[in-house]
Amino acid sequence: MDEFGSIRHWTNGRQSGELLHGQGVVLGIGDDAAVVEAPPGISGALQWVLAVDTMVESVHFNEATMAEADVGWKALAANVSDIAAMGGEPRHALVSVSAPGAWGPARIRRLYDGLYACADHYGVAIIGGDTTSSPAQLVVAVTVVGTVEAGKAIRRSGAQPGDAVFVTGPVGMAAAGLHYLLAAAALGGGQFVPPADAAAAGTAALVQAHRRPAPSVRAARMLAARGTVTSLNDISDGLSSEAWEIADASGVRLLLRESQLPVSGSMAVYARSKGINPLEWMLGGGEDYVLLGTMAASDAKAAKAALMEAGLPMYLIGEVEAGPAGVDMIAEDRHSGHRAEQEKRIPIQKKGYNHFTD
Amino acid sequence: MDEFGSIRHWTNGRQSGELLHGQGVVLGIGDDAAVVEAPPGISGALQWVLAVDTMVESVHFNEATMAEADVGWKALAANVSDIAAMGGEPRHALVSVSAPGAWGPARIRRLYDGLYACADHYGVAIIGGDTTSSPAQLVVAVTVVGTVEAGKAIRRSGAQPGDAVFVTGPVGMAAAGLHYLLAAAALGGGQFVPPADAAAAGTAALVQAHRRPAPSVRAARMLAARGTVTSLNDISDGLSSEAWEIADASGVRLLLRESQLPVSGSMAVYARSKGINPLEWMLGGGEDYVLLGTMAASDAKAAKAALMEAGLPMYLIGEVEAGPAGVDMIAEDRHSGHRAEQEKRIPIQKKGYNHFTD
Repeated sequence: MDEFGSIRHWTNGRQSGELLHGQGVVLGIGDDAAVVEAPPGISGALQWVLAVDTMVESVHFNEATMAEADVGWKALAANVSDIAAMGGEPRHALVSVSAPGAWGPARIRRLYDGLYACADHYGVAIIGGDTTSSPAQLVVAVTVVGTVEAGKAIRRSGAQPGDAVFVTGPVGMAAAGLHYLLAAAALGGGQFVPPADAAAAGTAALVQAHRRPAPSVRAARMLAARGTVTSLNDISDGLSSEAWEIADASGVRLLLRESQLPVSGSMAVYARSKGINPLEWMLGGGEDYVLLGTMAASDAKAAKAALMEAGLPMYLIGEVEAGPAGVDMIAEDRHSGHRAEQEKRIPIQKKGYNHFTD
Repeated sequence: MDEFGSIRHWTNGRQSGELLHGQGVVLGIGDDAAVVEAPPGISGALQWVLAVDTMVESVHFNEATMAEADVGWKALAANVSDIAAMGGEPRHALVSVSAPGAWGPARIRRLYDGLYACADHYGVAIIGGDTTSSPAQLVVAVTVVGTVEAGKAIRRSGAQPGDAVFVTGPVGMAAAGLHYLLAAAALGGGQFVPPADAAAAGTAALVQAHRRPAPSVRAARMLAARGTVTSLNDISDGLSSEAWEIADASGVRLLLRESQLPVSGSMAVYARSKGINPLEWMLGGGEDYVLLGTMAASDAKAAKAALMEAGLPMYLIGEVEAGPAGVDMIAEDRHSGHRAEQEKRIPIQKKGYNHFTD
């Protein structure tokens, strides 16, 4: 039933013994199941953090928007981001690949190349794999296992009135990249859009954000260690949707300040060239895989300084208020050039700017 | 991108707090990731055992051979069996479901019904889920996490000359069930074959073996506790293939005795009615999800007695020999009615009876 033969073909010897040992891998791919233990050198009790995420061809990507290796990278990165969003350290991954029979081993190999590139970048040991044939489309499901200090996982439900709201990177770049890729693919007859074309179009950073997202694991670990973060989400479904999740789970109101939102220059330029309001992508775009969270306001500036010191971005974009669960935004007053005396407060819908009522 | 909305719709409140607590679940489905810890009441160090397995519509099943709930049951059972094959105790599962848009919520609900039925049967907590739409076929990928006493996972590589070879149930029933289902579906225009039809045809047990396999978790745990099992595999790809895996990994020769192989009566009757040699299904059939293993010969009879005492079958089907890695079978002498003076030894190919050279 499995025409691709043994998974070992794509996984044997792909990661260093040092990485596997460092992540507590007792037995990797090759038997009925993998065996892991608490990684060496860790003091204190641990809990395990687990997430699963799926990417489906023609639903989440197509042959023009993503190369095989990009799909591999992103399928793992999306899960690594989920572990980071709990304040956890990603350690192990199990991979299920269902690939069309027409693919052949070389394309599957490239998919695994992307998986291993992402795994090595984040120090994740790939300990399980199942590769089956699929009648039509590629489906990649990845489970990632991480650890967190016992009792320290950061949920969505802890935001308190008075907390500061932060993000760990600009939002909307991945959506802008997808917009460019779909337009370029339409012109190119559905062929894969090469990075060189994106570079020529000035959208290289946007395409990179879409194809090779870089979850905020280090930032998450540094923030979690401070003990002052009260809620944390990764932005997979757009800033407005994730802000709503925190608001709903915590029973609070998140107030975002448009003027404080980090705007990528290349996204703004590309948006302007297409006559699109960048807020559409920033609020509703999704797949940015940066973190959105809340923390004690008293520690927010120090946290930002500590992350900056480590070369990691952090932006304070608003505050938490008491009130019925929801999300508001203080709009920037672009016409007067300075902040209006009376702030303009706009309710943000869950689905983002598309349903934005100004 | 996900037209099925929240996974919570199918997962909320489906398992008892007692089950979740007993499996060390700190946080289940609903946040970015789940959090688990070592289950309460366990003394001694644990390691974690993890496996992933995928079922693809039209590759592993179709609408005639399996109902939605059967797919859910079997996708989880296949992984539970992998944990058992390491001597482990299955505890947690994460589920990825990619379902065609035409399915609608009711069919997905039935799929989850089967997942939860199997989960409850084995005491497994479902802690993660991702449900996406699929353009054409159903793809279900399940990751199961279990525990094993530290250092006690049973690999394929420990078989020693002189060991006894055993299985924990009859083999070939699932393959016979599939044979019946495909034939019945061909007659019925590809419609789902109802259990009542199978009952009428005398193949109910075979169909059950195919649709609702029952992994040997209790047997695995009892055997592992004896400390005398030297290798263990679950029979997902057929007895001959699994025997070869142990032989290859251990560098030994497995000698199976045809006269000792457990034969299901309903399988033998159905095979005879179709003019098929049951050995074809027994050696090459697969998806039985019983265990094949080797153990110290000195403990084999006592182990069998202990399992019988607990109502669990165990069959001693051969022995391990030194020699080049491989599998032989001592054929039954059907013509003389008694064992021939000179045993007839037949080399068994990896792929089973199909490539059997008599």
